[in-house]
Amino acid sequence: MKYSINIGIIGYGIVGSGAVKILLMNADDIAKRVGIPLNIKKIVDLDITTDRQIGYNVSNFLSTDVNEILNDPEIDIVVETIGGIKPAISFIKSAIEKGKNIVTANKELIAKYGFEILPLATENKVDFMFEASVGGGIPIISPLKSSLAGNKIHEIIGIVNGTTNYILSRMKEEGLDYVEVLKDAQAKGYAEADPTSDVDGFDSAYKITILSSLAFNSSSKVENVYREGIKSITSQDIKNADEMGYDIKLLAIANENDKCQVQARVHPTFVPKNHPLASVNGVMNAVYVKANAVSETMYYGPGAGSLAAGSAIVGDIIESARNILTNSTGKISCNCYASKEMISIENLTGKNYIRIIAEDIPGCIASISKIFANNDVSLERITQKETYNGIAEIIWLTHESEEYKISKSLEEIEKLPVVKEIGSRIRVI
Amino acid sequence: MKYSINIGIIGYGIVGSGAVKILLMNADDIAKRVGIPLNIKKIVDLDITTDRQIGYNVSNFLSTDVNEILNDPEIDIVVETIGGIKPAISFIKSAIEKGKNIVTANKELIAKYGFEILPLATENKVDFMFEASVGGGIPIISPLKSSLAGNKIHEIIGIVNGTTNYILSRMKEEGLDYVEVLKDAQAKGYAEADPTSDVDGFDSAYKITILSSLAFNSSSKVENVYREGIKSITSQDIKNADEMGYDIKLLAIANENDKCQVQARVHPTFVPKNHPLASVNGVMNAVYVKANAVSETMYYGPGAGSLAAGSAIVGDIIESARNILTNSTGKISCNCYASKEMISIENLTGKNYIRIIAEDIPGCIASISKIFANNDVSLERITQKETYNGIAEIIWLTHESEEYKISKSLEEIEKLPVVKEIGSRIRVI
Repeated sequence: MKYSINIGIIGYGIVGSGAVKILLMNADDIAKRVGIPLNIKKIVDLDITTDRQIGYNVSNFLSTDVNEILNDPEIDIVVETIGGIKPAISFIKSAIEKGKNIVTANKELIAKYGFEILPLATENKVDFMFEASVGGGIPIISPLKSSLAGNKIHEIIGIVNGTTNYILSRMKEEGLDYVEVLKDAQAKGYAEADPTSDVDGFDSAYKITILSSLAFNSSSKVENVYREGIKSITSQDIKNADEMGYDIKLLAIANENDKCQVQARVHPTFVPKNHPLASVNGVMNAVYVKANAVSETMYYGPGAGSLAAGSAIVGDIIESARNILTNSTGKISCNCYASKEMISIENLTGKNYIRIIAEDIPGCIASISKIFANNDVSLERITQKETYNGIAEIIWLTHESEEYKISKSLEEIEKLPVVKEIGSRIRVI
Repeated sequence: MKYSINIGIIGYGIVGSGAVKILLMNADDIAKRVGIPLNIKKIVDLDITTDRQIGYNVSNFLSTDVNEILNDPEIDIVVETIGGIKPAISFIKSAIEKGKNIVTANKELIAKYGFEILPLATENKVDFMFEASVGGGIPIISPLKSSLAGNKIHEIIGIVNGTTNYILSRMKEEGLDYVEVLKDAQAKGYAEADPTSDVDGFDSAYKITILSSLAFNSSSKVENVYREGIKSITSQDIKNADEMGYDIKLLAIANENDKCQVQARVHPTFVPKNHPLASVNGVMNAVYVKANAVSETMYYGPGAGSLAAGSAIVGDIIESARNILTNSTGKISCNCYASKEMISIENLTGKNYIRIIAEDIPGCIASISKIFANNDVSLERITQKETYNGIAEIIWLTHESEEYKISKSLEEIEKLPVVKEIGSRIRVI
């Protein structure tokens, strides 16, 4: 008979301190929902002097020595929120091997080493839970594992990075350019000093790797995810999109075709304004799932933040605590029982928005159009925008076309003497 | 060692046949996700001759005798999809007492008798699962029980009835009146021949009773839910709302105040166009949850339909099967450990839209305004719409005001000789 579940928390930063605050703030209700209290036994961080201002005094629990968690046989659940691969991976493996259940927010670790860690957890009959790794506080991992488990999932489309969604939303609302908004976002703490992981799509790529593995029951490799960030998007692209009935969002998309091949990709995308994802603005995230029984469902909420990510962490702790009390830990892991080929973006078929900067001289549009035609790319719409100093901006919207035909066309178009630059090429959902 | 989980299905109608189709269509993946196959052993219905056109031959499993399920010791999970109170309640109680796990879509039964059945399930250590009872295929019961369990929930706002949302959406899109759209919805199968349960808000009231009980851990009583349907909404109200920046939705709302009192209500509501619920159209449903850690999350998807509800049923079956395999059934029930007072709508504070039909004579607006002022209701906006034959339609938007003050004002206004009718009174979210 257990009288409490003991928790050790490795990493007392934004996410870790959010989880600690929630465990203390909602302790009474949580104890009743679990059946017995959840007890924070130890919090480990390199920095145990900075006050995290959570409104509770946790100084008695703080330590800089991770072994006080790993070697404490009374600790049932280890929460890892330090992020990154090293040393997180060795802490997690050690904890699993000691029979501790793991709750983590570490998307990079799961995307890169999930194939190794999840079976280790199953082998050791411990829980390995990672709701906080995708979509912050949005329940999406759990629905994929359970509520939707009767479905064959066809496609997952997510806005899973709050920083880029915030930047794109503000670029649209205020007509500002990327660099301006990024600076302001950094000043406000919505973007990091080095924004690469967000704006170049790495963060989204980790997350779609995780969702793809869960949805298609096959371990997806992050290096097979096509990745393109938002740096080349201009306020003019956003304005053009708006005029054509679209919003531009950085989407993370994974789908399985009827040959059981999986494709995963991250890129800016034209989203029709009436699509549920179009109205997901600012730092909010959403994940849209298409499946063969339920058709479409969407999950919406805050994609980041101390208490939002903390909410997902504590939800996992509660679920694991319930499993501990019923001796049923280690029940569901990734469930990657299949081994599906991942195919490249060259196999994609879709519409493309293309912005070309060219000399405004007779025959220019004709010569570009001819290249598209020679490559079997048919066009839905051509619009010539403003001309300055003899240089025109020409907007092309293709019909559905194979990715490689568009790419080949653009390679050839770029070489035309009249063409100054391929300004943008954005896929349409 | 079990080699399969045996399922008995009571009710082979729209929901039951959807579940059967999914179990057969996705059998291979489901078996891998559970660990062993799920086996449909018996399907019971009064009508076993109508072909449900699910694309699979299930004639060997059909029976009209419910005892072939209830008395079969090999059946592990009983799915109840007949709906209503009698005889469903006796079948469910009998199955629970025989140690069978229950999966049901029966919102009326849970709303009215959940307080009795859930403890019975806990006592008998069986699962009682009801994801399909609210929001069709949308996972919302499971997030409330698990992923969000670290939160103190403040408020739940749902569009949980597809029929009324379809009617209101079409009234808006096409400028049609309620009666016209209802007739067409009935012809298309989106509304029942007797639409009372939907259009008068009973269905939504059952659903918010269930959500409220789960969210606030206190058994809510459906008779304490304020209920108002959509029959009095005119196309003019919808047009007025649109001009003022709102959509009209039938919302089911439950919240807990800082005195631990719960209020639940169903009524047409002005929803600001930038609210995530405003863009939930047609037969789609969504549930919006405000909580103290995660802030706001929303769950969106098809609120009805054979495969959508079937998806929720099969998700529950899979979860229960996993519990059976780990001897951990009966783990979480409603968790109604608290006993919170339910308070009436008279305690509500909010803005109201009021449409008054009155004689277009000098002093009319002044006399109505005076009544509002005497009752301490301040006004945000007054608009006089078209006048015909000396009769004017006057639109009032109040500032935040206590419900009882608005009600008292309207009672007095109705008695004014110049006033022909209080056309509508719609609360604003």
